[in-house]
Amino acid sequence: MSAVFGEHIKISIFGESHGPAIGVTAEGFDAGFKINVEALQEFLSLRAPGGRMSTKRKEPDIVKFLSGVKDDVICGSTLTAIIENTDTRSGDYSNLYDIPRPGHADYTAQIKYKGSQDVRGGGHFSGRLTAPLCIAGGIAKQILAKKGIEIYARIKSIGTLTDEAPTAYPKLSEMKKIDLRFPVYNQDKAEAFENIVEEARMNGDSLGGVIECAVFGVPAGFGGPLFEGIEGRISQAVFGIPAVKGIEFGSGFDGSKMYGSENNDGFYFDDEGNVKTYTNNHGGILGGVSSGMPIYFSVAFKPTPSIAKKQKSISLKNKENTDLEIKGRHDPCVVLRAVPCVISAAALTIYDLLKE
Amino acid sequence: MSAVFGEHIKISIFGESHGPAIGVTAEGFDAGFKINVEALQEFLSLRAPGGRMSTKRKEPDIVKFLSGVKDDVICGSTLTAIIENTDTRSGDYSNLYDIPRPGHADYTAQIKYKGSQDVRGGGHFSGRLTAPLCIAGGIAKQILAKKGIEIYARIKSIGTLTDEAPTAYPKLSEMKKIDLRFPVYNQDKAEAFENIVEEARMNGDSLGGVIECAVFGVPAGFGGPLFEGIEGRISQAVFGIPAVKGIEFGSGFDGSKMYGSENNDGFYFDDEGNVKTYTNNHGGILGGVSSGMPIYFSVAFKPTPSIAKKQKSISLKNKENTDLEIKGRHDPCVVLRAVPCVISAAALTIYDLLKE
Amino acid sequence: MSAVFGEHIKISIFGESHGPAIGVTAEGFDAGFKINVEALQEFLSLRAPGGRMSTKRKEPDIVKFLSGVKDDVICGSTLTAIIENTDTRSGDYSNLYDIPRPGHADYTAQIKYKGSQDVRGGGHFSGRLTAPLCIAGGIAKQILAKKGIEIYARIKSIGTLTDEAPTAYPKLSEMKKIDLRFPVYNQDKAEAFENIVEEARMNGDSLGGVIECAVFGVPAGFGGPLFEGIEGRISQAVFGIPAVKGIEFGSGFDGSKMYGSENNDGFYFDDEGNVKTYTNNHGGILGGVSSGMPIYFSVAFKPTPSIAKKQKSISLKNKENTDLEIKGRHDPCVVLRAVPCVISAAALTIYDLLKE
Amino acid sequence: MSAVFGEHIKISIFGESHGPAIGVTAEGFDAGFKINVEALQEFLSLRAPGGRMSTKRKEPDIVKFLSGVKDDVICGSTLTAIIENTDTRSGDYSNLYDIPRPGHADYTAQIKYKGSQDVRGGGHFSGRLTAPLCIAGGIAKQILAKKGIEIYARIKSIGTLTDEAPTAYPKLSEMKKIDLRFPVYNQDKAEAFENIVEEARMNGDSLGGVIECAVFGVPAGFGGPLFEGIEGRISQAVFGIPAVKGIEFGSGFDGSKMYGSENNDGFYFDDEGNVKTYTNNHGGILGGVSSGMPIYFSVAFKPTPSIAKKQKSISLKNKENTDLEIKGRHDPCVVLRAVPCVISAAALTIYDLLKE
Repeated sequence: MSAVFGEHIKISIFGESHGPAIGVTAEGFDAGFKINVEALQEFLSLRAPGGRMSTKRKEPDIVKFLSGVKDDVICGSTLTAIIENTDTRSGDYSNLYDIPRPGHADYTAQIKYKGSQDVRGGGHFSGRLTAPLCIAGGIAKQILAKKGIEIYARIKSIGTLTDEAPTAYPKLSEMKKIDLRFPVYNQDKAEAFENIVEEARMNGDSLGGVIECAVFGVPAGFGGPLFEGIEGRISQAVFGIPAVKGIEFGSGFDGSKMYGSENNDGFYFDDEGNVKTYTNNHGGILGGVSSGMPIYFSVAFKPTPSIAKKQKSISLKNKENTDLEIKGRHDPCVVLRAVPCVISAAALTIYDLLKE
Repeated sequence: MSAVFGEHIKISIFGESHGPAIGVTAEGFDAGFKINVEALQEFLSLRAPGGRMSTKRKEPDIVKFLSGVKDDVICGSTLTAIIENTDTRSGDYSNLYDIPRPGHADYTAQIKYKGSQDVRGGGHFSGRLTAPLCIAGGIAKQILAKKGIEIYARIKSIGTLTDEAPTAYPKLSEMKKIDLRFPVYNQDKAEAFENIVEEARMNGDSLGGVIECAVFGVPAGFGGPLFEGIEGRISQAVFGIPAVKGIEFGSGFDGSKMYGSENNDGFYFDDEGNVKTYTNNHGGILGGVSSGMPIYFSVAFKPTPSIAKKQKSISLKNKENTDLEIKGRHDPCVVLRAVPCVISAAALTIYDLLKE
Repeated sequence: MSAVFGEHIKISIFGESHGPAIGVTAEGFDAGFKINVEALQEFLSLRAPGGRMSTKRKEPDIVKFLSGVKDDVICGSTLTAIIENTDTRSGDYSNLYDIPRPGHADYTAQIKYKGSQDVRGGGHFSGRLTAPLCIAGGIAKQILAKKGIEIYARIKSIGTLTDEAPTAYPKLSEMKKIDLRFPVYNQDKAEAFENIVEEARMNGDSLGGVIECAVFGVPAGFGGPLFEGIEGRISQAVFGIPAVKGIEFGSGFDGSKMYGSENNDGFYFDDEGNVKTYTNNHGGILGGVSSGMPIYFSVAFKPTPSIAKKQKSISLKNKENTDLEIKGRHDPCVVLRAVPCVISAAALTIYDLLKE
Repeated sequence: MSAVFGEHIKISIFGESHGPAIGVTAEGFDAGFKINVEALQEFLSLRAPGGRMSTKRKEPDIVKFLSGVKDDVICGSTLTAIIENTDTRSGDYSNLYDIPRPGHADYTAQIKYKGSQDVRGGGHFSGRLTAPLCIAGGIAKQILAKKGIEIYARIKSIGTLTDEAPTAYPKLSEMKKIDLRFPVYNQDKAEAFENIVEEARMNGDSLGGVIECAVFGVPAGFGGPLFEGIEGRISQAVFGIPAVKGIEFGSGFDGSKMYGSENNDGFYFDDEGNVKTYTNNHGGILGGVSSGMPIYFSVAFKPTPSIAKKQKSISLKNKENTDLEIKGRHDPCVVLRAVPCVISAAALTIYDLLKE
């Protein structure tokens, strides 16, 4: 509900795309945990540009801890980590105060901040701000892993093209096999995805898609009814990622079309005496509380609003309608780079949840 | 993120289905506002059972203000309103501690509260707890109306049956015409919806559906980037309603299949010099901030988990698998009664938002 | 910082002195704990009027649980408890909207709520609102007792008269002996206190005083630096009690006059190998964190502002200066009745703290 | 109640005394406000060491904005400002993990963070962390000044020596005259204060004292009853400053010794028709709400715990009692340097309050 995320941990993300640095200030991380900094950098590199389907802007995204970490060990005091901005070409963005880009926050930021916002590179609204999210989320993911909780995500669809899942709902054994550098079940789909994205790019256009995320190992009994529900908590974190426009848990929108007898998940005891459900349409959450089954959800990303095609806009200065052609480096599809962001949002929420 | 909702207003919902009373404690409501109590009762009656498609339990749901209201005027101090529970037949629910109902919170509550929860009628997880949500939401709706903000919702689909909208995105002129007692655009659909629900009920089954909600009149510039975004805020409130499993804003999941050139909403000045967009795929929110266009979203409800059909479950006491047949009064479809709940969740969020 | 107190528990207090009921809505209390309702009522009776040094208004203050408690056991869901107001004579307070009483919130409430506040009996600003504080605090106290944490308080002074302590800082063995119905170390002081209060009352005047509170059994390591410090947390709760104007921890204001070599508390290992300090000028808190030594603090209460003597005030209606004579039932000294309130504020804070 | 301060603004302070940097992350500061960076640096220099009565450590304390500020103008997005640590000599502090210093957080931090804390220079518990508090507070002070609100503070006493005030309660005209570099009413007292501090230092000892702070220009009607009260809010911020052990508002502890007829402040209309009180024992706050009169309070600081004299402590490693002699650079009295910290705590609270 505020710029600070979390009940038991507190996460503030700061920075502008072309300011001195972006970063995160975090409270409540476990004192004594040793961060695997190399693994964290690798996780961040999944989000960094320069990969397949991304802009050409090159940012190394090196994490620098300003506080709360000594010799890679979390001290327990407030943790602040930054990434210094280096490759910024502010010249590209000069007229954003005047002609807002459709689908971007240029216009709404202008109204909200009355012209004081830093528009360069999207400023504080830039997708670049997901890098600090991934710093905090990447650390949370490491801590959770030590507690036996694993989080995976995959590209479910790009545009109208879908990567079929091998099972009715996410299984740890299947998701473990996925290559996070291009997280699809069927590697032939990776190429097909790339092709349609490249095609869109050539047409001066862009594509959106859907990411599926699953959390394995959360014990039953966390969360709560009403505003304490896990769905609402995860949603708040996930909608913090720019371009997200929808989320569904378990069978979600499809489940709304089923009969109760189809959608209900019958209980049983497995061989070790654990309570399980035969199916998992509830997505691991019943009454807002974890059931012990895998928690999973899908996230809809809109197509990148930055496109080369000519668009209709306005000149705020001249108070007249005008056309707009955007120049500069832009991702034709953010879905691939958004995968670690969704994982991070899930990791932070689950970490916060388990601190109850 | 907690049992208390809101940044600038604070909403706590309390009560168990079969306890002495259910209610709401609310902070931050506008001192001096005169509540139209009759209109509030009417709004609550939309949620109350006894209508078409609902259980036969009869609860009058009379609001009683314990504090913060004098002569129907909001004092400014903490407001507490209750509804006394009268028609409770606890005998129906005796074995819920042992055999959890699929799709319900019986099992997860048992783990979370270690058997101390009140299971009668679903206790604190009951859909009945949406009544106090509607008290607070109904008051917020009245206050917003005075500020020129109107909120409507409609049944978009039940099961696989859809009520077609007359326009690409919600328009105030169209939504105003809808009869809230059965909120569909096409009245012939009301009958079709009733028929499939009745058919499901006859089969000992249930149905889910989708509700669309739209908020008109929110000025541009409210909300914020990252965790301050309107989408995340509304989601937290909406997922507080039992049975919600998905939410999407604007073009949502469909938008994720479009090209950027299709999904982007071009800007223009209308005749009065207001900034508008030609289309509204962004659902009135850009970068988490209101654009001045109608805010709208769709909410997926799972089918009512309480069904008469025999289901698979377990006996926690005997630690063995068992079958379950549920008796008692249950709604075969909560979608109709959920409409004021979705409106209330939206109203509380927007009210909180405008207090920034 | 808001009307809702607590990080891990959340306490909202509601009600007006002459409204239908006063009460408390509380989140986060331990599911499964069985409340000793009789002991709770006894604790509340310490605050209730009718005792020595108090008004003649007779309120039975019977706690009624609306939610979150079943058969005296805490369910884990939101707990709401109320006390119905019965003995209210609103006729006494008719002109408070016009002529504000010095030392009361009449004027400030008038400005804040623009005349919509309920002034009868002080409305939401009434000392009566400490009754729900004592409900929540009394329950917290019982839960803490089961964890080995005990909280005591005593009257340290009334007016210029002081009750001398037998030890340099509070010891459990000494405080345990105190009779909570008139909590002084030296019973002859009880009579002396009564005499000066009665004398003040006869003169149409009132007295203030200081309460000392001590918490025994809090393990070392709770709290935190900066805004997480225990002192700040306890202060926020304690200043929630009407008429409190000062607080000091350990040697407090006296400590500010000492040399470091006097005020510092040297460490030692006791016979069981526990870390202790020879003295306890730090009041059990170092760097905002509990040291394992008893936590103690003193609270300054101003004299009751309601006095029979003629006072200078204004007529807001006539916009002119005027004299004021207050009629009605008033406590000449709230200090005795405030003792359970201070204990409650401490109990809620420590309970919240231990949930970290 | 948490490491994050504020309801409408959110302040996180980070850093360790000998880490790479200390800083502050702040949300909710007014977009469009132009910071007077030179004045801010000057304000910070009041807190910086190297002045009269302080250690010899030389830190320039240059503020560097990482985000939220462009060309000295606040953007509206999250503001992060840091001070890089330069003059750190970590060698001085090597055995703090073993032998805790009396009066310091060494022991409690050790228990809380289980040895993962950064002890160098006091780590996160260091008085150095008040520098970022003064960055945020200094900016808030500038913003408040533009709204007509002025905040002053002065040294009221050091040890047993008091600087007498010219008026019964703080007046703007008198406080304005005070030289903030050594804020006393009577300049001869400055020398007397220096002498007793120097004497203490020569004896290997230290002194505490009391600071009085006053806020002029807050309109009536801000704050609220119970946990919303201004006293509790200010206290939470003020107790965030290391070494604070007490706070009192208005007549405070002295007021508890008065009769109601003495302590009550009669109302009157002044010549311009403003409501005022003849006296100001209520310290500008009635019922937790501002009255329009100056808000003032006194803060007790304990003597600096770092003293050269031999003290009693323990070896945590050897589990035995031991003596301790502290070497290194230490302030014999923090009161002078704490003045801008108290002003900052007040400024942040009042700024937060006015955003209601």
